[in-house]
Amino acid sequence: MDHDNTRNLMRQTPQPPVERPNVSPAVIRRLPRYFRYLRELIRQGKLRISSGELSKLMGVTASQIRQDLNCFGGFGQQGYGYNVNYLYENICELLGVDAGLQAVIIGAGDLGRALVRAPMFEKRGVNIISMFDVDPALIGRTVGGVLIRDMTELEKFCAEITVDMAVLTLPKEHAKEVSQRLVASGIRGLWNFTGIELSFDEESVAVENVHLGDSLMILNYRLCENAENKN
Amino acid sequence: MDHDNTRNLMRQTPQPPVERPNVSPAVIRRLPRYFRYLRELIRQGKLRISSGELSKLMGVTASQIRQDLNCFGGFGQQGYGYNVNYLYENICELLGVDAGLQAVIIGAGDLGRALVRAPMFEKRGVNIISMFDVDPALIGRTVGGVLIRDMTELEKFCAEITVDMAVLTLPKEHAKEVSQRLVASGIRGLWNFTGIELSFDEESVAVENVHLGDSLMILNYRLCENAENKN
Repeated sequence: MDHDNTRNLMRQTPQPPVERPNVSPAVIRRLPRYFRYLRELIRQGKLRISSGELSKLMGVTASQIRQDLNCFGGFGQQGYGYNVNYLYENICELLGVDAGLQAVIIGAGDLGRALVRAPMFEKRGVNIISMFDVDPALIGRTVGGVLIRDMTELEKFCAEITVDMAVLTLPKEHAKEVSQRLVASGIRGLWNFTGIELSFDEESVAVENVHLGDSLMILNYRLCENAENKN
Repeated sequence: MDHDNTRNLMRQTPQPPVERPNVSPAVIRRLPRYFRYLRELIRQGKLRISSGELSKLMGVTASQIRQDLNCFGGFGQQGYGYNVNYLYENICELLGVDAGLQAVIIGAGDLGRALVRAPMFEKRGVNIISMFDVDPALIGRTVGGVLIRDMTELEKFCAEITVDMAVLTLPKEHAKEVSQRLVASGIRGLWNFTGIELSFDEESVAVENVHLGDSLMILNYRLCENAENKN
């Protein structure tokens, strides 16, 4: 099937799609990985890639790639491959890279300060507009160009400026109470590094719980398993 | 079936099991989460828990919990529940928490310095014995009680001291080359934060690639999806 006409038509009329494509949660989970690989291909100046090449690069089957990418209209052309920029733009749009999301970091400790300086946010279109802490020694300081404000100013700040997302790097003892304050202040996304699993009944609140320790434990396990197999 | 005698027998003869139980990869992936919850229960002084209570707490079905935990002999007793400490000890042993693993951190930038001070490693039985960097301004300094050494000393260091694991927080441009040096030096576990996916043909090398940005992208996606559903 040749979808090239459709694609060209879409390219010539760059208006936002009326509705987001219906993409399964499993595919969504895989899209950030495509985002990373496509980004790298663009950096290398590669304009087209076949599902076969992408398959080799990413270590998944070509049929999986075709299934995943056809989901949201990233049609490859037989013998010609995918348009790398077009795919990348579509994935970026679906993943909200161009949505202008604004975030605050709660907790200006080691992790908070490491995150605010990480290029990861900018690359993914997220703008860190403030940090918050309770420590008077930190409040008023600037890290990575971002001011650390007093936690008592949180509600006032959120009332004045749209904050879409809060990155939680505060001690876990305060995670629940603070996350409730954040949600009450209208924040609808929590990126949670506290180690406590947070969840909200409101469907409108999105939470991503990050458990770095879980990944470390898996590595521990595999190291021990390998050591045993050697014996 | 009543396995309580078996358990008591095992408890009375605390010798290491002859072989590790055969646990499926899916269950292994879930164990770090049990580890966290059991740890918290122990902190609260809870000695026994039923699969029903644990189910409510963790938001998974009681039948899933029974299946997961029976896998490696954590038999609960009908109407009596699981012995929290016993379960925890078994999971710790399986996950290598008591294996005395030793790690180095490659890269003493923001993330490396945040990680070395994180209690996560100690809680999981991993001992950070050194950091390495190429920056003369950092070499010789101590962060979180750990000395930053010159990358040129890496091979010598690994020849003298057993290093099980390297935590990679260096710039991605050097990730591949450095990881090859690490593996050549006998390190068998890589906890990789560089954003480049690393893999080795040697089955004896375990790699955990951490992609924080992927988690951020999923949050972005869900925020945009929710915003759209609201409109």
